[in-house]
Amino acid sequence: MLEAREAVRNLHAYRPPLAGRTGLRLDFNESTVGCSPRVLARLRSLDSELLARYPEREPVESEIAGFLGLDPAQVLLTNGVDEAIHLLCSTYLDPGDEALIVVPTFAMYAIFAQAEGARVVEVRDGDNFTFPAKDLLAQLSPRTRLIAVANPNNPTGAAVAGDVLIQIAQAAPQAAVLVDEAYFEFHGETLIDQTRIDHTRQMENLFVARTFSKAYGLAGLRIGILAGEARQMAMVRRVASPYSVNAAALAVLPEALQDQEYVGRYVAQVLSNRERLQQELGSLGLHYWPSHANFVLARIGSAHADFVRALRDHGILVRDRHSDPGCEGCVRLTVGSDEHTQTLIDALRDVVEQLGLRTGLRTELPNGVRA
Amino acid sequence: MLEAREAVRNLHAYRPPLAGRTGLRLDFNESTVGCSPRVLARLRSLDSELLARYPEREPVESEIAGFLGLDPAQVLLTNGVDEAIHLLCSTYLDPGDEALIVVPTFAMYAIFAQAEGARVVEVRDGDNFTFPAKDLLAQLSPRTRLIAVANPNNPTGAAVAGDVLIQIAQAAPQAAVLVDEAYFEFHGETLIDQTRIDHTRQMENLFVARTFSKAYGLAGLRIGILAGEARQMAMVRRVASPYSVNAAALAVLPEALQDQEYVGRYVAQVLSNRERLQQELGSLGLHYWPSHANFVLARIGSAHADFVRALRDHGILVRDRHSDPGCEGCVRLTVGSDEHTQTLIDALRDVVEQLGLRTGLRTELPNGVRA
Repeated sequence: MLEAREAVRNLHAYRPPLAGRTGLRLDFNESTVGCSPRVLARLRSLDSELLARYPEREPVESEIAGFLGLDPAQVLLTNGVDEAIHLLCSTYLDPGDEALIVVPTFAMYAIFAQAEGARVVEVRDGDNFTFPAKDLLAQLSPRTRLIAVANPNNPTGAAVAGDVLIQIAQAAPQAAVLVDEAYFEFHGETLIDQTRIDHTRQMENLFVARTFSKAYGLAGLRIGILAGEARQMAMVRRVASPYSVNAAALAVLPEALQDQEYVGRYVAQVLSNRERLQQELGSLGLHYWPSHANFVLARIGSAHADFVRALRDHGILVRDRHSDPGCEGCVRLTVGSDEHTQTLIDALRDVVEQLGLRTGLRTELPNGVRA
Repeated sequence: MLEAREAVRNLHAYRPPLAGRTGLRLDFNESTVGCSPRVLARLRSLDSELLARYPEREPVESEIAGFLGLDPAQVLLTNGVDEAIHLLCSTYLDPGDEALIVVPTFAMYAIFAQAEGARVVEVRDGDNFTFPAKDLLAQLSPRTRLIAVANPNNPTGAAVAGDVLIQIAQAAPQAAVLVDEAYFEFHGETLIDQTRIDHTRQMENLFVARTFSKAYGLAGLRIGILAGEARQMAMVRRVASPYSVNAAALAVLPEALQDQEYVGRYVAQVLSNRERLQQELGSLGLHYWPSHANFVLARIGSAHADFVRALRDHGILVRDRHSDPGCEGCVRLTVGSDEHTQTLIDALRDVVEQLGLRTGLRTELPNGVRA
């Protein structure tokens, strides 16, 4: 009788609600306008030879490294950030090691860490999802071999200052510290400089992940970046398949990088619409947490499932985060273009009215949450 | 000081010679004519919405399952067969477990097994790359948790009868037995029926991998299949990212499946050209092993590197396999279309003449090798 490893038998599969996503998709923090037309044009110019060949990652990796101001040896292109997380877990986590994860957060850190047989130590955010630096430092042990932090965090939208993360990386030199900057473009602050070759500043155990799935509108093509110190990255590379990033992704990536104007315009729209959505949530009497990403987490309360359903009836998909630690009654709304945000706001007004949420929630206002 | 796991520190990265591949590419066993025009047309019809969305694997998985006559629960689409191998290793191999691998073979079985901290036990092929069933059975131990066999094998082109593999799977019920049928279309025999839901025949520990990288001409898009018993596949799924297969691959896959006529025509060409190439190698006095795949392994002898270089000067890329166990002096030649095979044969005649190989090799004829 064939038995999976104990770590795998204890694991729960992550099954995101991908089926039947028709309507305005504000449920996965994707771009609502899609990629640059230059990217699409490049995709449509691909020929069968490119499809027939095994993909060659390195030339594009060099280009990305140049864009980031890093050395190619410090950069690995990955099959989405998921693969970056998986590779870090494979490279550094032995069974019995500990992975520190600040929750609530993105599900895959815990899944890949557990899959390696590591013990996941969850550190809960402070009040209003403030970063629990002190609690995290208190949980460090010699067996701590991975610390994963999304900054800005998902699903909360909260951000932590880079100094704090550097302090943590310094306090845990035996651990790989992953700072997942999937939402970097909507926040503007990064630790990627800290992985730079300048040895006075470089942190050997710090890794930064980026993605083309959000601001660049390319979630479908699976392009992530993992950046870190060159010798560490050489280790990570050993466990990676040479072909994990597909040829279509590699072919369009330079176009995506070059059309910064397009991305910049979209990001500017999202930032202004994030403000607009937050103001609207406030005036509707809904509680929300100010966000540094392209989504806003709102506390709907006990009506969270009705709220998601009612928006779906209005043709809008949003994500129920009620089951995330500390997110009871919460729903996450992706911020998109001007037009899409207007559609969302119109629907929100209807739904709040329809479900009688405006008054019902006032009493649930948690400490310090803006309403 | 951050240190990678011991298993990773002991690992050598697999770095295939992907750079500068200009000319007729007969070095990676890719299709030389590329995918069906229907696939390319579908790729060129993709819109930015599809690129912006996270890929949804399951509908296409169901389609593939139907094509294979399996239940969707038995089939996982993977980011190339590399991911299938990686997932099997993650699911079943604990540090200290043993992975049995018949060599020479595809490099990634050993790499992913070692990355999990497993001990790789190599079993050498018999004379003329015959499958070492007896030696393999003799190496089984209670710690044997993975057995990986490419059938047909790469780089030898040798095939083993399904009965032998079934016998091995039965003898090692504690091990996941991966039969990698990447070259299935050029061989025509499969064990996929043995994973079928028919419980009288189903083998719980048998996994079959397939790929769209070879006969279908889609190596660039990274599409592999892992098939197995449903409960086992549920375990494998737990360690997989939900998004590992990209949206472009998922979008074109149904077209690739539906245009069986195109694939069938190409495979028929390859089979006839394989015969033609083997005859030519024989009449040139070069030793080769009759192949069941879309390539032929030939023993060139001490001139192997010169031979590869001389073909490159003729604009043809082939793969030096001299460093593979038992492949001293060997070069692997991919078989392609009529035209491409003619180009190869013309160049071979020149190169054999040029390097004086025709006479030089006669004395090196190993036992039972056809010349």
